[in-house]
Amino acid sequence: MKVIIVGGVAGGATAAARLRRLDETAEIVVFERSGYVSYANCGLPYYIGGVITDKEELTLQTPESFWQRFRVDMRVRHEVTAIHPAEKTVDVRNLATGETFTESYDKLVLSPGARPTQPALPGVGIDRLFTLRTVEDTLKIREFIEQHHPRSAVLAGGGFIGVELMENLRELGIDVTVVQRPRQLLNPLDADMAAFLHAKLRQKGVRLHLGCTVEGFAANGDRVNVLLKNEAPLTADMVVLAIGVTPDTGLAKAAGLELGIKGSILVNDRMETSAPDIYAVGDAVQVKHFVTGQDTLLSLAGPANKQGRIAADNICGGDSRYPGSQGSSVIKVFDMTIATTGVNEKTAKQAGIDCDKVYLSPMSHAGYYPGGKVMTLKVVFEKGTYRLLGAQIVGYEGVDKRIDVLATAIHAGLSALQLKDLDLAYAPPYSSAKDPVNMAGFMIENLSHGLVEQFFPEDVDALPRDGSVTLLDVRTPGEYADGHAEGFVNLPVDDLRERLREVPVGKPVYVICQSGLRSYIACRILAQQGFKCYNLSGGWRLYETVVRDRTAAQEAWPCGMEK
Amino acid sequence: MKVIIVGGVAGGATAAARLRRLDETAEIVVFERSGYVSYANCGLPYYIGGVITDKEELTLQTPESFWQRFRVDMRVRHEVTAIHPAEKTVDVRNLATGETFTESYDKLVLSPGARPTQPALPGVGIDRLFTLRTVEDTLKIREFIEQHHPRSAVLAGGGFIGVELMENLRELGIDVTVVQRPRQLLNPLDADMAAFLHAKLRQKGVRLHLGCTVEGFAANGDRVNVLLKNEAPLTADMVVLAIGVTPDTGLAKAAGLELGIKGSILVNDRMETSAPDIYAVGDAVQVKHFVTGQDTLLSLAGPANKQGRIAADNICGGDSRYPGSQGSSVIKVFDMTIATTGVNEKTAKQAGIDCDKVYLSPMSHAGYYPGGKVMTLKVVFEKGTYRLLGAQIVGYEGVDKRIDVLATAIHAGLSALQLKDLDLAYAPPYSSAKDPVNMAGFMIENLSHGLVEQFFPEDVDALPRDGSVTLLDVRTPGEYADGHAEGFVNLPVDDLRERLREVPVGKPVYVICQSGLRSYIACRILAQQGFKCYNLSGGWRLYETVVRDRTAAQEAWPCGMEK
Repeated sequence: MKVIIVGGVAGGATAAARLRRLDETAEIVVFERSGYVSYANCGLPYYIGGVITDKEELTLQTPESFWQRFRVDMRVRHEVTAIHPAEKTVDVRNLATGETFTESYDKLVLSPGARPTQPALPGVGIDRLFTLRTVEDTLKIREFIEQHHPRSAVLAGGGFIGVELMENLRELGIDVTVVQRPRQLLNPLDADMAAFLHAKLRQKGVRLHLGCTVEGFAANGDRVNVLLKNEAPLTADMVVLAIGVTPDTGLAKAAGLELGIKGSILVNDRMETSAPDIYAVGDAVQVKHFVTGQDTLLSLAGPANKQGRIAADNICGGDSRYPGSQGSSVIKVFDMTIATTGVNEKTAKQAGIDCDKVYLSPMSHAGYYPGGKVMTLKVVFEKGTYRLLGAQIVGYEGVDKRIDVLATAIHAGLSALQLKDLDLAYAPPYSSAKDPVNMAGFMIENLSHGLVEQFFPEDVDALPRDGSVTLLDVRTPGEYADGHAEGFVNLPVDDLRERLREVPVGKPVYVICQSGLRSYIACRILAQQGFKCYNLSGGWRLYETVVRDRTAAQEAWPCGMEK
Repeated sequence: MKVIIVGGVAGGATAAARLRRLDETAEIVVFERSGYVSYANCGLPYYIGGVITDKEELTLQTPESFWQRFRVDMRVRHEVTAIHPAEKTVDVRNLATGETFTESYDKLVLSPGARPTQPALPGVGIDRLFTLRTVEDTLKIREFIEQHHPRSAVLAGGGFIGVELMENLRELGIDVTVVQRPRQLLNPLDADMAAFLHAKLRQKGVRLHLGCTVEGFAANGDRVNVLLKNEAPLTADMVVLAIGVTPDTGLAKAAGLELGIKGSILVNDRMETSAPDIYAVGDAVQVKHFVTGQDTLLSLAGPANKQGRIAADNICGGDSRYPGSQGSSVIKVFDMTIATTGVNEKTAKQAGIDCDKVYLSPMSHAGYYPGGKVMTLKVVFEKGTYRLLGAQIVGYEGVDKRIDVLATAIHAGLSALQLKDLDLAYAPPYSSAKDPVNMAGFMIENLSHGLVEQFFPEDVDALPRDGSVTLLDVRTPGEYADGHAEGFVNLPVDDLRERLREVPVGKPVYVICQSGLRSYIACRILAQQGFKCYNLSGGWRLYETVVRDRTAAQEAWPCGMEK
């Protein structure tokens, strides 16, 4: 059996190694367009920032090491230029020599990945304008920085790679401005959770130029002008385009393979394309979202690796199935960690799911043990069924742990009510006796029993201030004095029972505290006295962060105001 | 409704707060024998070590704060001396005044906890001999250390509290010796995994005196002699008994409540005892083990808190059920983290479960990102069904995360084969594209497909060295030279295909590498050439650690050799 693999990074390299382990006699040839195989895609921004100091670290394997261990013929700088499914051949060009040739296959695995989206804008292609996807791109950016010591950079786009690059450029002392049309970074977050990210970036001196449309680029001496719609251009010593990626499926399309959304390659759960004996894996394929069941694209290394293994299994006569992706992701942003799994509220609603949510602000570990920090956790679930849909966490230590617990719960089909029962490991340096995930379960159970009703930051400003409802802030006078929502009256929870007569009878009560816990207790007191009560989920902490984000965006960049 | 709660720490305090949130009108009285309520049991060793500096930190709530927020009447230094289920009353003694009185109840919650096992040995009770369970115990030990500056301590017993205390005393510069009859510390670990813990403790200068029986204690001037069977006594400036805990159920027994193992209180999954309107929670109650279904005792804060909440729900007319405990636990040991969930191999076998296991040594995060460290992960599962039974992890960063993912998988009833499918969050600072938990799943799937067969460290010494089997070490010559198992011949995996003729045909081959990965690849090469092959699970790394642990125990302490 002769297997040809197009693309030697995550999915392709995994498929090659697995194939060899399953079949010692197969001929396995990998064509990789770049000069590197099996490289650490996700490490590239850290090489630019000097966190990863040795270039060798980026290339997990070389063609030589792959040959030695796996007898896989890894041909770098070889580009497959055409697939002929009927003949079961591919046309290949050796980029070093220009030579072209044809190779036959019994089985073909496509792992072409995705390439940075290149907007069709004037000036794309000029000097000092970079993209970041391959080792070569990385080396180019790092070399530029070392030679030219840029003092400023504009990043167009704020996805995972973009945000990682922000951090790494900033840590090098470079003045960083981010510009993009969407009003928030990291699309897997809902806007309220992104507010914490924005705050951290602003604190670290990154300028956020959100809601602005880039219209082109122009050389300006040794610098680059980034042309904006309705606004003066930004000028910087370098620009990186990180607008997003597009499945690199020109080959598949030309070969007549069935395509999915955004030109991705259509595969079934065995990673088989529409053409016999052709498999496809990684960023280039369309997958089912594990939660919504909808078709989706996800550029993540975990799924690519799993899919490569599955394709190899099936090529060797197995029956391995890919269960779908749920988009679990995590990113370090300076000292902060941000993680998501499943779908966010925005996506759930777009998918037509009737969803509810809780926010909580637990400590990463027991408050009495030094070093604990607050995280903000948002859990989204389906109304009525309590099906877990997704979670987002922003914080420091322990964020990645809780997202993986929630990812596992979602994968296993646990209901949101079962989160309270999880028997998680506790010791003071690691967690609390009631882990944040348990706490989310307790809160959702309380909702399910009607013990409390919620309102949300987005509802606060619309509440009537005409006396028709009661607005209570149950924090201490000191906390209240430090900042509070307009129209909310201070009545500390511990005084509530004695001062109950101050709460007007017959009117709904909206209660705020710092994180939502004391206001929940206040709601329980009031509800049992016959009041109709609503608890601000996420508390003042979340509300204030969202409001400050909005204010900062408005003050900093007038164009952020465009429709 | 009047509710009396006996014991105001984890389970009792949680029940009190939940009761109030559910019922604003109930009269809630808590009797707590010690001077503190709702204190941080798990933080006590860290106060002794000065990690937690402020005593106030240990007491999460005070009677005053509980009254202010919850209108719960917390009476410290009040001991309940008798329960009269027929009359629905309890007798109480005020330990401060000596006054006794009787209180009636509608509902009673028992949360008496467990007390340190006091062996019936000569000398128990002498000066400088301590136990550690309450805030008072903690203050006494810390005060002793501050006043007397002990230079040496003997700890009798090596459970969680014992090991935490070892670390804290050691960090104070005290010479620590641990003595106990069992040959390993931390019973939730299997002996092979405990070897890593022992190695760390020895490295930190803790003397392990395992397999030795303590026969008594005797004052020796300002010091204490610890009398040992078949050996000279140990002498130290202080001794702490941390042999274990016993359910504190004298009250329940005297009241005629049905008891379970070790005198624990029998409850159903609603936390109801055998007597009407009496509930019990926490360390004193017998629980079902979630994995084995067997009755068990577990002294852990997480379950106690959950049970307190459940009892309160049911008292208020709800129907909350406790699903059982799976014993998830985590402990910091100097810079190391050790965690377990479910049952270990030893317990599974005792429960009559036919089990199998895998060991792996993955990095905590991507190898190319700085700071990653190796962890050792053992997953135990049922043969044939691939039901997950338990996991143990010893390592550094990320250990607590993986145990919680595995705990969630076990709770959700995922099979060991499904671990490979979990969509976990990956970025270089947090994990690898194939997370350690995924890797365990891949390995177990390989076993299930017959792609590889395993042997284990405990099998190595018994392998014939008479040429009837082939013993291969497929690491590099350098690694082999640094240390290898007797009789194993070096043949690096990358040379195996070329030197295949050196492997005698017709004999089983046992293959070792460092962690088990290269030997797996070698096994795949050999198996496809017709060899019957066995891969050393855990590799040289695990084998060497187990052997060194055995040697160190033998060399250090002759009495460790007793039968």
